[in-house]
Amino acid sequence: MDIKEKIRVIEDFPVEGISFKDITTLLSDGEAFNFSINEMIKMVGNLEFDLIVAPEARGFLIGAPMSFQMRKPFVPIRKKGKLPFETLTYEYELEYGTDILEVHNDAIKPGDKVLIVDDLLATGGTVGAIVEMVEKLGGEVVGLEFLIELDFLKGRDLLKGYRVESLIQY
Amino acid sequence: MDIKEKIRVIEDFPVEGISFKDITTLLSDGEAFNFSINEMIKMVGNLEFDLIVAPEARGFLIGAPMSFQMRKPFVPIRKKGKLPFETLTYEYELEYGTDILEVHNDAIKPGDKVLIVDDLLATGGTVGAIVEMVEKLGGEVVGLEFLIELDFLKGRDLLKGYRVESLIQY
Repeated sequence: MDIKEKIRVIEDFPVEGISFKDITTLLSDGEAFNFSINEMIKMVGNLEFDLIVAPEARGFLIGAPMSFQMRKPFVPIRKKGKLPFETLTYEYELEYGTDILEVHNDAIKPGDKVLIVDDLLATGGTVGAIVEMVEKLGGEVVGLEFLIELDFLKGRDLLKGYRVESLIQY
Repeated sequence: MDIKEKIRVIEDFPVEGISFKDITTLLSDGEAFNFSINEMIKMVGNLEFDLIVAPEARGFLIGAPMSFQMRKPFVPIRKKGKLPFETLTYEYELEYGTDILEVHNDAIKPGDKVLIVDDLLATGGTVGAIVEMVEKLGGEVVGLEFLIELDFLKGRDLLKGYRVESLIQY
């Protein structure tokens, strides 16, 4: 199945010059969505890991079905103020301004092998922040798996030394 | 398996007097999460439907694995400005102020039988808005499925005439 064909490209969203990869058309095809998640799981292969970490909101669409199917714990990364228990709060720089992410302190234990999952690897800013958060809690990032990778943004260069894989590239 | 036992209750979050049901402890148990999604699917039973609709962000954690497992289309409801294509934008009243939700116009077609899924039925305000959005696009809401229902908030009363089910009640 050609998954790329199921993704809709929308020019100039959210701002002029950006060619946005819209996965809602993939989600709208039940067979294609099922196939994509199973392909993500195949990509992980026999890598040993303890839990899946994914950021809200689109990362949940990929990470939660993977976690369900692989029967592995799922740890959500959320925007500030959404998680009710004690959190590690992490502020990181964006092109303009900063963003804040949180993870529950007790969700990752020292030595846990962590698989980070998201829909898109662009510049790598967000996922780089998530790597730091996992490592601050003592987790070991054993792999980063993306549905889509925008090669030309070279996000992979920020993640040198890590196992980085993507199902579709632009 | 006692799923309720896997949910952490946190008092006074996000504000004093609220007894918050934290599902991250359920997500953190790979077997319990898998079991819960399969129980949600059993609850749907042989109900006929065309697609699953769920709101960001926590609704994605339940709706996406159900969609994956049932090979049914998944339609995300998002906060304002997140969806790149033409949207139906819907503003609705909260206890204090208003909130805005969006859905892609082309994601639901007239006559589509729609299953709405979310993690929590509280007062029913958000899910009531989603019902209205689905119906504005000509969809038929055939069921509303929740992981958790807060009985005492009587959200179910707002959804009279619809099939409403929940896996766990407080």
